[in-house]
Amino acid sequence: MQKPSLPKGTRDFSPVQMARRNYIFGVIKETFELFGYQQIETPSMENLSTLTGKYGEEGDQLLFKILNSGDFLKKTTADDFAAGAKAMLSKIAEKGLRYDLTVPFARFVVMNRNDLQFPFKRYQIQPVWRADRPQKGRYREFYQCDADVVGTESLSCEAEIILMIRRVFKRLGLLDYSIKLNNRKILTGIAEVMGAEGMEGPLCVAIDKLDKIGWSKVQEELLQRGFDDGGIQKLQPIIDLKGNIPEKIEFLKEFLKQSEIGLKGLNELEGVIDTLKQMGENLDFVEFDVVLARGLSYYTGAIFEVKVNNVSIGSVSGGGRYDNLTGVFGMDDIPGVGFSFGVDRLYDVLEELDLFPEAALEGTKVLLVHFDKKGYEYGLGLITKFRENGIRAEIYPDSVKIKKQFDYATKKQIPFVAICGDNEIVSKTIALKNLDSGEQSSLTLAEAIDRLN
Amino acid sequence: MQKPSLPKGTRDFSPVQMARRNYIFGVIKETFELFGYQQIETPSMENLSTLTGKYGEEGDQLLFKILNSGDFLKKTTADDFAAGAKAMLSKIAEKGLRYDLTVPFARFVVMNRNDLQFPFKRYQIQPVWRADRPQKGRYREFYQCDADVVGTESLSCEAEIILMIRRVFKRLGLLDYSIKLNNRKILTGIAEVMGAEGMEGPLCVAIDKLDKIGWSKVQEELLQRGFDDGGIQKLQPIIDLKGNIPEKIEFLKEFLKQSEIGLKGLNELEGVIDTLKQMGENLDFVEFDVVLARGLSYYTGAIFEVKVNNVSIGSVSGGGRYDNLTGVFGMDDIPGVGFSFGVDRLYDVLEELDLFPEAALEGTKVLLVHFDKKGYEYGLGLITKFRENGIRAEIYPDSVKIKKQFDYATKKQIPFVAICGDNEIVSKTIALKNLDSGEQSSLTLAEAIDRLN
Repeated sequence: MQKPSLPKGTRDFSPVQMARRNYIFGVIKETFELFGYQQIETPSMENLSTLTGKYGEEGDQLLFKILNSGDFLKKTTADDFAAGAKAMLSKIAEKGLRYDLTVPFARFVVMNRNDLQFPFKRYQIQPVWRADRPQKGRYREFYQCDADVVGTESLSCEAEIILMIRRVFKRLGLLDYSIKLNNRKILTGIAEVMGAEGMEGPLCVAIDKLDKIGWSKVQEELLQRGFDDGGIQKLQPIIDLKGNIPEKIEFLKEFLKQSEIGLKGLNELEGVIDTLKQMGENLDFVEFDVVLARGLSYYTGAIFEVKVNNVSIGSVSGGGRYDNLTGVFGMDDIPGVGFSFGVDRLYDVLEELDLFPEAALEGTKVLLVHFDKKGYEYGLGLITKFRENGIRAEIYPDSVKIKKQFDYATKKQIPFVAICGDNEIVSKTIALKNLDSGEQSSLTLAEAIDRLN
Repeated sequence: MQKPSLPKGTRDFSPVQMARRNYIFGVIKETFELFGYQQIETPSMENLSTLTGKYGEEGDQLLFKILNSGDFLKKTTADDFAAGAKAMLSKIAEKGLRYDLTVPFARFVVMNRNDLQFPFKRYQIQPVWRADRPQKGRYREFYQCDADVVGTESLSCEAEIILMIRRVFKRLGLLDYSIKLNNRKILTGIAEVMGAEGMEGPLCVAIDKLDKIGWSKVQEELLQRGFDDGGIQKLQPIIDLKGNIPEKIEFLKEFLKQSEIGLKGLNELEGVIDTLKQMGENLDFVEFDVVLARGLSYYTGAIFEVKVNNVSIGSVSGGGRYDNLTGVFGMDDIPGVGFSFGVDRLYDVLEELDLFPEAALEGTKVLLVHFDKKGYEYGLGLITKFRENGIRAEIYPDSVKIKKQFDYATKKQIPFVAICGDNEIVSKTIALKNLDSGEQSSLTLAEAIDRLN
């Protein structure tokens, strides 16, 4: 007899974990919808032609591929086999599992362009799959939770993303965090000022590591990546930059004065800040982080990242603006801005800070228990009334010792037990016991419903 | 430039479709939880060793298999290749996509048996994948929506499943339907009476087709499947059986009097009916259908199926009791009973009967529109107040003609538009227009919030 197991890097979610995850998803969904975002879903499988080449060479390696159905070898020859996995692949697999939600969204926009109303605000909460080496906190199947608005360049979208993040965090009870804001064009401008025009890509990769490896190692890496010493020295004041937002803007206006694109980025950043002010928001939680780079290369405007303070977990949300979501599928460039929440990380943060509210996780409210067939039948006659009044109720289904029934309630964290004994049958009541306080009252059905509502 | 497409048999879900699907899922989830069921999720991928051999030979063919990562050919030889797909399969694929929710649930129970509280009531709403030939209404990826209780033989579970189905249908506005009820043991007993002990399997397969092919074709099939003429004649009164539930029970008590197991099944069926009565339910909607067989071979007790009347769609819900969910994974037999809703079919039924309620599908409630920068900034200053009061609100993000902004509201089915013009700025009001009635009022922010709440 086989002993079953889970594929590496995958997880089951128990009822308690699901209740907690649903709580997080609920707050996020409600917030997205408050801001006018609409949900879509795309299939788990996409054609490999849709996925391949969109995530770099490493990404292509990490795609899960689905074997063609039926005789999957029928298009292959012994020569293909001899040529190895790469030659075989395209002949035995045409589909792969979704690697992120962005590429499927781009495909969706292109395929539905005539039916969509632009600006199109969509959110999407679905699992993605990556054949990564599993390790603590990194899974091969995990949910992504994305919101994007496409078809507009309005900076109000950036401002609203910041407001959505704030609302989600407030609802989750997360009060100590910072939203780091930057703009890719500023980084492009900095590269220009360094005399390394067009090298913002490697610049971003290197300074993205500042937190992890420190400034002197970043300098080494910049040298290796082809920056010259003079350029790197020009970066020094950027690395040292301190002050509030207006002070940093002031400094960069001077620093970037020779770079048109740099000044444009700075202007966009000011526009986001101004919009937030016009919306009546205080800016204490926003940090202008000139060295925030974010890895993804398709960002072209604002970029942001959120970190909860005083926890061991990295960024829990981030995103940015892009010029060209759909170009790869042959549709005229559509600009947009998007962000996502890392739900697994938010879960860990809430757990670490003990912020999951008990009420949100409550399941069954009352368990009807009984000593004998008469009590059981009495309970059967009552339970529908509880449910009709919206009270989540169960009756213990078997005739077992009362202690076992109480144990069931305790282990399932059911807060109340309704005892259906002989006295209760005679007096047409139930004995309602609060398992937390131990308090027990003899109540009519109507009273019990009142108490539990 | 490639033109993107979807894999055969898969679908995107648009915002409107998602809102409708979420409405159905919401009603089902709320009902499951009212009855004490808890949600779990299992991974999309399972080891092929978990899946294979559980769905018959045809099912094994329909499993989507996932190619091993990296050099998937490394365990194969030219001899394997020459031997064909079957020989290659086990060496290049170790994982497959979930085919249903039952086998993953059984695996979950076995792996978590020490942490679960029995009786364990779980529900699960996730997609499954089958490499079936796509056709109208049949997809390669579709959601299943299952609830099972395991670890008890109490007939109250069957009764509660019927109550859950009733509640879901009532909430969805589906009033004309019938719940067909039968018991596998009765079918076993009928086979015994026919002189074909142990042949309830083929009997079920044949009479399952009664609706489709008619009684004379079923007789032919029974002959082919090895039943003799005398036996088939004994089936005649079962096929002809009419009357209400007590009359049918009366008839079968006599018909099955030589079959211990048949009488046991009849007894269980009476038990379910009695429990429903004890719970105060009327039984008008329950039909005792002695020829209801249901295909799945693992059912051993009650079986049921729900059909909406006066629509072209087949059964939308069904399930049954089983003795042995986990035996295949080496865990002592765990009895249980479960059922599922066919969400795609429910969707089609609600659409056909025009039962989707507009209120449940409403997205954004109000769009703020503006003629110029001043109006836009005025709107920015107001919008947060709407949202703080729980009103889903958007501001049109770009400076475009007012007509285009109104079009956006109309196409997104936003019922109200709040006009931010010069008059409104001066009088600190907004002009709130109901796009349905055309009615427009000049309101303070507080009044507008009142009106929209």
